[in-house]
Amino acid sequence: MDFTPALNHDAEAPLYRQLYEQFATKIRSGDLVRGERMPATRELAGLLGLNRTTVSAAYEILEAEGLIAGHAGRGSFVTGSAGEAGVDWSALLGRTETGPSAPTGGFDAGIVSFVMSRPSSSLFPLDDFRASCAAVLARADLPDILQLGSPSGYEPLRRYLLEDARRQRLAGPGDDLIVTNGCQQALDLIGRVLLRPGDRVVVEDPVYTGLKNLLAGLGAQLIGVPVGPDGIDTAQLERLLARERPRFIVVTSNFQNPTGATLPLAARRALLEAARAAGVPVVENDAYGELRYRGEPLPAIKQLDENGGTVLLRSFSKVSFPGLRVGWALGPKPLIDRLRHAKEASDLHTGQLAQAVLLEFAQSGRLEAHRARVLRAGAERLAATLDACRLYLPAAARWTRPEGGMNVWLRLPEPLDADELLPRARKEGVAYVPGRYFAVSRPEPGALRLSFAGLDPEHIRSGLAVLGRIASAGMESAARSFDPAPAMV
Amino acid sequence: MDFTPALNHDAEAPLYRQLYEQFATKIRSGDLVRGERMPATRELAGLLGLNRTTVSAAYEILEAEGLIAGHAGRGSFVTGSAGEAGVDWSALLGRTETGPSAPTGGFDAGIVSFVMSRPSSSLFPLDDFRASCAAVLARADLPDILQLGSPSGYEPLRRYLLEDARRQRLAGPGDDLIVTNGCQQALDLIGRVLLRPGDRVVVEDPVYTGLKNLLAGLGAQLIGVPVGPDGIDTAQLERLLARERPRFIVVTSNFQNPTGATLPLAARRALLEAARAAGVPVVENDAYGELRYRGEPLPAIKQLDENGGTVLLRSFSKVSFPGLRVGWALGPKPLIDRLRHAKEASDLHTGQLAQAVLLEFAQSGRLEAHRARVLRAGAERLAATLDACRLYLPAAARWTRPEGGMNVWLRLPEPLDADELLPRARKEGVAYVPGRYFAVSRPEPGALRLSFAGLDPEHIRSGLAVLGRIASAGMESAARSFDPAPAMV
Repeated sequence: MDFTPALNHDAEAPLYRQLYEQFATKIRSGDLVRGERMPATRELAGLLGLNRTTVSAAYEILEAEGLIAGHAGRGSFVTGSAGEAGVDWSALLGRTETGPSAPTGGFDAGIVSFVMSRPSSSLFPLDDFRASCAAVLARADLPDILQLGSPSGYEPLRRYLLEDARRQRLAGPGDDLIVTNGCQQALDLIGRVLLRPGDRVVVEDPVYTGLKNLLAGLGAQLIGVPVGPDGIDTAQLERLLARERPRFIVVTSNFQNPTGATLPLAARRALLEAARAAGVPVVENDAYGELRYRGEPLPAIKQLDENGGTVLLRSFSKVSFPGLRVGWALGPKPLIDRLRHAKEASDLHTGQLAQAVLLEFAQSGRLEAHRARVLRAGAERLAATLDACRLYLPAAARWTRPEGGMNVWLRLPEPLDADELLPRARKEGVAYVPGRYFAVSRPEPGALRLSFAGLDPEHIRSGLAVLGRIASAGMESAARSFDPAPAMV
Repeated sequence: MDFTPALNHDAEAPLYRQLYEQFATKIRSGDLVRGERMPATRELAGLLGLNRTTVSAAYEILEAEGLIAGHAGRGSFVTGSAGEAGVDWSALLGRTETGPSAPTGGFDAGIVSFVMSRPSSSLFPLDDFRASCAAVLARADLPDILQLGSPSGYEPLRRYLLEDARRQRLAGPGDDLIVTNGCQQALDLIGRVLLRPGDRVVVEDPVYTGLKNLLAGLGAQLIGVPVGPDGIDTAQLERLLARERPRFIVVTSNFQNPTGATLPLAARRALLEAARAAGVPVVENDAYGELRYRGEPLPAIKQLDENGGTVLLRSFSKVSFPGLRVGWALGPKPLIDRLRHAKEASDLHTGQLAQAVLLEFAQSGRLEAHRARVLRAGAERLAATLDACRLYLPAAARWTRPEGGMNVWLRLPEPLDADELLPRARKEGVAYVPGRYFAVSRPEPGALRLSFAGLDPEHIRSGLAVLGRIASAGMESAARSFDPAPAMV
């Protein structure tokens, strides 16, 4: 084989990945043909000045993808499409690359993980859930639940949610409701219906990774508006709307992910007025609204909107069982009609067993009882988080003080970098998501998200004690390295 | 009000819809302002030469959307955004119009409906289903099932399906598997990952509406290859692939919807070779493959493909409970990796309760027992359909003779038009989907789809007796109107 990969040691892609990709491209293009011998790992490592495990890692992926095959004692050989035609997946898939997902797993079971913004499974009321399932399984309409259903959702659930929204004055006569696979799919369907590649969408900055990836995947250009302690900056939003003519705004009214910020009443009105004046729809993403631990609830933007420009997204996920994937969108009929078409094209409808069980869980009063428990636990966990931040973090650290939800946004003092500290934190048994995963256009190297809802107070305290220690150590070592060198005497 | 709508009596859109749209546009643009009186329905009907119910229908939609309000005895008034700014939903949504959905509902309960290609809910083994749920609810990992899961699917199910595919030699070492919300979402994710607007996709012609709408919604340009009794025309396909360079092919190997056709072994190999030579991926849509009532099963295209160019889509929907929405895609790892990213952006993951219950249903052997019953019933229903076609339809009618699945494709003799006959059929208690809903570029006015799996043999016979009578009457009346007028004596 007379091919020597050229590696870039400064690139973001790890070296094993670069190595893998260069070989894969050569094999798929037919430059390296079937049967050709791959260089021995030791030999290639020496040639390129790499660790041998780096080369082995690249070869392992090549082998997993069927591009090369190793034979004990004889080395590895090219087995891939090798000079023949065939599908070049890397070329086909390459042109629609997606952004990085926030890290979610791969941690030891023993680790204190602030990573996932999700409820604690230890709080799941399993017996109440079983009782709700039993009630559904005894229903006369069980065959209808198991049969193909409507893209609008399981009709008894849809009606229940719509009537509930009408009672709360969230829904007017011109509104309709569609059940989706959580808020995530509602956002996806809205994007599919409203966006063309290149369209601009205004989002909060920082905002959760799932929304960024979704909109980027649909070809949207994201415009971030900073989120302060009081939510999105409405003055800046107003200027932006007039200038940029975005297709829509996505805003989180309550306990924003990742900052935990809630939009005050006056800001809700200002946002609505700015959106109305510009003729821009508002997508009110409210997955966390039911999780207020203190303070007074505020009317939803949807409720304040008298002009039919807002669609409200809610979900059972954060307040009950995220694994069931049931949320909904409530908004103007013409939009919901089109979401229904998009939903039908996308996956026909949301699974009806989960919908029927959640309806029973809600109608039986079990959801409300569970929510009361979740609120008590959430209040305790939030308080533990804020207390531990005060107790353990360096004095110059700053963090938000949400009144509900699942997330606190922590800013470590300069020059600390949350991304750089993470390996050390993981080594000491603590994990979090660094701020860069949430940044739209304003990276905050010192920021990180603390998702506290899944951890009990004791773990929250021990996790923050570790973080505090690491941050303080980082400050000290930074101070030392910036000290002028003492004069040699 | 000095606005008179201009209607096009030859347009496809019904008159009430045209009327509604013209008023809605005027109101939303502010040309008609809040408080303005709408013309009385009787007056407008007279002016435009319309039936008064047409005008009333338009006004009802305007009122439902909050654009006008009726006051008893005083007429209707404009209430809409009227001269103010605000969101113009019709302008925002107008530019991404979707195709027509095939009619699915709105029928009386008593009607014999050949409309839905889905299993019979009267065959659902409810006690077996309940037992599977009970087993899941007793599992130690129930909290994990209810917690946020992986975009790849509930891991025990994913592993079970992948191992099963390996045993069947469907999956090679370079393959991976992702659980989706039925085959429909697998197709959607593939489209999202591979397509850019304007890209060409080769599909069967006729093909089911859900696939057409999905691909059109993603901006694809569909190229239809005719489906004969032996499935897609592979000679034509080969010429097309070389000439059109499509992004991928979607092909149904078994019991195609709507024709019921199955691709013979030689055609599978020919298709695979043509696709390989052109470097075009094959999407093998195999929702019906488990429902073979007679004849020998054939190896899947995926199984024949040694070059990693095929992705296979399968589902629990047709063989068990479609309302649970669980299917999967099996294919080359690089593709499945990207589908996982798209799945995560789209709805995080498929609901895990349904996945866990279906795994239990399959692993316990209940699925296989149910499938045996479904196969017996299906064989009987298919035989009843083919017998009744022979018995009741005009001699010149033609229909396919599938060996499985849920659909027979019926071609009524010229000059009959299945679309024109439908109102008469519905009046006499029979419904079906006319062929035009399935056409890609070769409309067959006489064709219609008979979905037989949901009907018992007695209803199949009575329904086809009605269809036969209507078709014969249509033939007679056509013959009469083409007869030269008898000479007056």
